[in-house]
Amino acid sequence: MPRNFADRLLAEIDATQNPSCVGLDPRISRIPRAIRERAVESRLAGFSGDRREALLEATADAIVAFNKAVIDATADVVPAYKPNVAFYECYGPAGLRAYRETIAHIRQKGRIAIADVKREDIGDTSKSYADGFLGSVELADGSSTSVFDADAVTVSPYVGSDNTLQFVTVCAQQGRGAFILVKTSNPSSGELQDLRFDPQHGSRTLYEQMALLVDQWGTKCRGDRGYSSIGAVVGATFPEQAARIREMMENAIILVPAYGAQGGAAKDVMPNLNNDGYGAIINNSRNLIFAYTREPYSSKFGEAKFAEAAREDALAMREDLVSTMRASGRIPVGWAA
Amino acid sequence: MPRNFADRLLAEIDATQNPSCVGLDPRISRIPRAIRERAVESRLAGFSGDRREALLEATADAIVAFNKAVIDATADVVPAYKPNVAFYECYGPAGLRAYRETIAHIRQKGRIAIADVKREDIGDTSKSYADGFLGSVELADGSSTSVFDADAVTVSPYVGSDNTLQFVTVCAQQGRGAFILVKTSNPSSGELQDLRFDPQHGSRTLYEQMALLVDQWGTKCRGDRGYSSIGAVVGATFPEQAARIREMMENAIILVPAYGAQGGAAKDVMPNLNNDGYGAIINNSRNLIFAYTREPYSSKFGEAKFAEAAREDALAMREDLVSTMRASGRIPVGWAA
Repeated sequence: MPRNFADRLLAEIDATQNPSCVGLDPRISRIPRAIRERAVESRLAGFSGDRREALLEATADAIVAFNKAVIDATADVVPAYKPNVAFYECYGPAGLRAYRETIAHIRQKGRIAIADVKREDIGDTSKSYADGFLGSVELADGSSTSVFDADAVTVSPYVGSDNTLQFVTVCAQQGRGAFILVKTSNPSSGELQDLRFDPQHGSRTLYEQMALLVDQWGTKCRGDRGYSSIGAVVGATFPEQAARIREMMENAIILVPAYGAQGGAAKDVMPNLNNDGYGAIINNSRNLIFAYTREPYSSKFGEAKFAEAAREDALAMREDLVSTMRASGRIPVGWAA
Repeated sequence: MPRNFADRLLAEIDATQNPSCVGLDPRISRIPRAIRERAVESRLAGFSGDRREALLEATADAIVAFNKAVIDATADVVPAYKPNVAFYECYGPAGLRAYRETIAHIRQKGRIAIADVKREDIGDTSKSYADGFLGSVELADGSSTSVFDADAVTVSPYVGSDNTLQFVTVCAQQGRGAFILVKTSNPSSGELQDLRFDPQHGSRTLYEQMALLVDQWGTKCRGDRGYSSIGAVVGATFPEQAARIREMMENAIILVPAYGAQGGAAKDVMPNLNNDGYGAIINNSRNLIFAYTREPYSSKFGEAKFAEAAREDALAMREDLVSTMRASGRIPVGWAA
């Protein structure tokens, strides 16, 4: 049997003494100019085909070069990376090539790759997503292969068990993980998720109902340390709801987006942790990877040293999280003082 | 201004006198052996690189060849096609190449391409999806290009307006459409969607709440014929809920999956139509595209004539729908008797 995903993730969190995650969400206009220019020149040199296709490939090349530099500069500090596929898929086949190369590079470095894809469908359609991102697919000659080979995915929940259980099955078989959307970080997330069902339906809010389901789905995928490979996404922008959700699914690992650019602070993510100091992984995307564009990093590093800036911000984030965990009494036993 | 999507879709429905849609959901093992073998031979002939990558490309080639044959055989009968990206994306970059070529072929034939992607995220992440599938993206040299160039997408709704409005904006600007999941066709769809909120929250079920939101979002995208480019997905397997949803959003076009393989019949989809005979587009996926694998088509056509079998099933579906529409009094004025 492949090793349980939750156990693997917790081992990486312990190895780095850091419950954080770097969101690799590239926006081409914020990637340093030198990287973009090199990618374009390289693809257009001596070129005589479809210019648009060449530029799509160049864009993908620039993203890969940027991501690899950020990963290489931070892999000893952070346990996990979470590339959001929207920023890759928008470039078509070239973009998915960049996505695949990014995941492969994360795993070559021995770190955890969470494919933030928020996929959702039904039956064997969902199975295709689960097989493509986590498992293996059948090819035209009857053989099979893994394709994206991520450690985990994010999953959207509206259609219910017919979707999520396809992912749960692959996770259980292949030692992979899935984080189901429960309470999202965006301003309008309450529009549906905070609405309360009537007493006949448990008087729970929609996000509480989701938390209950995630807890049930997760029972099949618990690892040696008690945590499940089926986790939840709960935005750092809603600490009160996070406390309620934490109670409802004590075995789940909560992926917490929105630290940083969206305004979540270390104190806001404490409710996502259990008293043992585990149970959450805190994501920081554009604030960290584009740290070079803001002070104090822009003065200290500038555009050429964007990767060092990302590293320094990753270290600052770890310090911020760990000191806040210590102050709140939620620090794993055995982590250095 | 680009022409409104709803107006374009209705024009195609009138041109074919057929409110149906072909779901291009290829499963490699069900594609005729001759197509698969040709694709594999062609990619492996004189080949000396990474065999796995060559087989991924061969699989994509087989899918494109199959799809083009089905599209060519049916494009005079059906107004729209709906490829579900899960069956393509699972093959990585090669799969997305097949997806893009499939959409391009549908549009070259003058038909409507609905990218069934069920995408969902927040803010500028959702915008990347909307730009990639419907609009245009920025490249590494600062220029921009369209990528998938579909006529419409499907969208998942759990995170709320922060997601859907990104798609609505692109649809309004570019003359494209979006179908938001409201009541899905799968057995477990009631698990969340049928739960009823308390009186403080309108005593509506979750799917009714979604229908209300879709109706609101759609007001910005109404065409000359009164229908909106922002529609809903409502499975053919739930005709009672469909009637309620139809009432709540009279200007929306409803994309109705699950005719055919999932058990929906023509009578089940009538509640999705307005009295004018418009307002729904009925999808048939694997039952139609793989018609050659079942009777009476397998005896009559066999594997070699899979495209003719699909065409005959598309004609049978149109006849089934139109005769049922006529019997129920929901037939557009001016359609041939």
